[in-house]
Amino acid sequence: MNVVLAQPTLASQIVEAIQSVVGSGPVALHEPLFAGNEWSYVKECLDTGWVSSVGKFVDRFEYDLAAFTGAKHAVAVVNGTAALHVALRLAGVQPNDEVLIPALTFVATANAVAYCSATPHFVDSEECTLGLAPQALRGYLQDITEIRNGLCVNRATGRVIRAMVSMHTFGHPVDIEGALSVARDFKLALVEDAAESLGSYYHGQHTGTFGLMGTLSFNGNKTITTGGGGAILTNDSELARHAKHLTTTAKVYHRWDFVHNEIGYNYRLPNINAALGCAQLEQLPDFLKAKREIFERYQNAFANLAQMHIVAEPEGCQSNYWLQALLLDEPVATQRDAILEATNNVGLMTRPVWTLMHRLEPYRVCPKMELPVAESLERRLINIPSSANLLYKKLACSESAK
Amino acid sequence: MNVVLAQPTLASQIVEAIQSVVGSGPVALHEPLFAGNEWSYVKECLDTGWVSSVGKFVDRFEYDLAAFTGAKHAVAVVNGTAALHVALRLAGVQPNDEVLIPALTFVATANAVAYCSATPHFVDSEECTLGLAPQALRGYLQDITEIRNGLCVNRATGRVIRAMVSMHTFGHPVDIEGALSVARDFKLALVEDAAESLGSYYHGQHTGTFGLMGTLSFNGNKTITTGGGGAILTNDSELARHAKHLTTTAKVYHRWDFVHNEIGYNYRLPNINAALGCAQLEQLPDFLKAKREIFERYQNAFANLAQMHIVAEPEGCQSNYWLQALLLDEPVATQRDAILEATNNVGLMTRPVWTLMHRLEPYRVCPKMELPVAESLERRLINIPSSANLLYKKLACSESAK
Repeated sequence: MNVVLAQPTLASQIVEAIQSVVGSGPVALHEPLFAGNEWSYVKECLDTGWVSSVGKFVDRFEYDLAAFTGAKHAVAVVNGTAALHVALRLAGVQPNDEVLIPALTFVATANAVAYCSATPHFVDSEECTLGLAPQALRGYLQDITEIRNGLCVNRATGRVIRAMVSMHTFGHPVDIEGALSVARDFKLALVEDAAESLGSYYHGQHTGTFGLMGTLSFNGNKTITTGGGGAILTNDSELARHAKHLTTTAKVYHRWDFVHNEIGYNYRLPNINAALGCAQLEQLPDFLKAKREIFERYQNAFANLAQMHIVAEPEGCQSNYWLQALLLDEPVATQRDAILEATNNVGLMTRPVWTLMHRLEPYRVCPKMELPVAESLERRLINIPSSANLLYKKLACSESAK
Repeated sequence: MNVVLAQPTLASQIVEAIQSVVGSGPVALHEPLFAGNEWSYVKECLDTGWVSSVGKFVDRFEYDLAAFTGAKHAVAVVNGTAALHVALRLAGVQPNDEVLIPALTFVATANAVAYCSATPHFVDSEECTLGLAPQALRGYLQDITEIRNGLCVNRATGRVIRAMVSMHTFGHPVDIEGALSVARDFKLALVEDAAESLGSYYHGQHTGTFGLMGTLSFNGNKTITTGGGGAILTNDSELARHAKHLTTTAKVYHRWDFVHNEIGYNYRLPNINAALGCAQLEQLPDFLKAKREIFERYQNAFANLAQMHIVAEPEGCQSNYWLQALLLDEPVATQRDAILEATNNVGLMTRPVWTLMHRLEPYRVCPKMELPVAESLERRLINIPSSANLLYKKLACSESAK
């Protein structure tokens, strides 16, 4: 409590700065916005009876996602976790393998590794991207691994490090060239967890399209939502075919026989959820515009506050600004909880970054490199209200006034 | 082809009998029917923005499911496979365990066991229920197992047989007292796969409420649908709490912190799908009435055809008649494919039962008992069109005419 009382004005200044952008609240961290064809497409599903596992909106959503991202193929699935699980399995992850993932991520990244009976191995982050740090990782892998029979082996555990997952934190693209270079040199499959980065580009190319596969999420708190949903992106036609097969119970096509030739999953996206996705995707360019404007307004509102800044997109990248992040300087990091308390108490929903994976009970014993940057970001980062609908209506009005 | 030509009239007689009930087609095997509040509830989700992981329809659907089935608790999840996976994990299934399941089931039952890194162990069926045969199983277990430290051990493999899954095939209740008795005597957790049996009762008690847990499915082809969805039923409050926790990423409640204390799953049912479920559940009594009448009409239509019958509910049970099943006598079983061909060729969608699990590539090496009944049923059974909407409108008309 002493800390809170020592600098009472910092939290209240932040409350004021946020309110200058989003109003007095209550304001959610991230809400969906249904301003397009959602009703009409969903009603079409109900009217035709096509709500479930097969239907034209699933096909269309996959086509539209591929077109938007520039990926050759998109496979719609039930959520982002399922997408990552199947992508890792298709990347060849075996029981008892290790998979490199950032310590700073949502728990789904680690869980997807665990579903493959493999072990997550935690990697530090870079402050400029909030994502996996390729240079630090390279030095670490040089120290602890060796290549045996074309596989990267952790000398300490004797296990194969099969793959690496880079995650585009809050929509900010990771150093993907760096990640690809490490993946290549250490014989790792690269899967991009692009759950948060639909509409984010690295040097003009959409995130999730660089690695062997990329995965998207359309959970209710994401830039666009299908209620719950996800997708696998890939430029490899055989991987796309296999992903579709595995996510639809691995049933071999036949007019009536039920034969399944692998252990598959019931990871289909229902048609009614895909219908929502088609309507949301139509509005994505407008959502992205609104989210960028929210970033700019926050940047202005916080310009005069010392010892903190709003996280901006990495150089050469275009972020979707899914979740806006306020980053405190280290000297005021002790104020983090007071700021969370003050903002939430007045109805401005804010939150810290996820607890780092190596601190979670099920992952405490997993291997990890030193994590100084991730630990610093964990102390200093606060997400603030970011919904497109905070400004979307204003933008739409000014558009139509032109 | 000789076989087909040898008795051309059997297939055509069956086509005629089916058409006398359902009309000339094309007729699907099972279609959903949205004749109630579906649109109004779904529209409420869109209007309020509550489409995703939290929302009043999820709570209401769980409440309504518990009320309908008489289970103390229902936990809504993303599909029936997910429900079974979590139920098995909560039943204590460990890697390298064995789990007894019927050989005659949909592949999801076996897959859920595999997701626990356990091995399915296949059990024969009874002709009168189409489900697991408790008496034959008892004799088999007496031969091949022994109890060590309170656990049932397969003497041949040395593995613990931890649990047993009984499945209520096409909505016909299994001999649940027999199954419970075997489970008790051999120290097995009993999980009821009630994916197909919402609205089916064993001696007046709803299926899925006898075992430690029961699981439901609301896939598009089920008696009621949520697009994709499922639920776990249990009378144990601690298991229900744990099921909810595991299916919602095992996040520990906190105003803003993200702490997950177990390896959990993103198995939430989205609110928009639950909204559909609430509306569908309101109509379930009408659907059940329609499906029972379809059974009676089929029974009449097939009464004069020798060497086959329509499967009726087991004695003392009330079946939901989810999928109607025509069972050929053994001498005409060779006609099965000709009948499938003839019916599908005229747009009457029919199908054989699932390929038995022990014939599928991923499960070929799993342990199994002798399966004479399951193999006989596999040769002889044909599912025929069963949608409630085939008669529902007629029923609704005659109701309103009263």
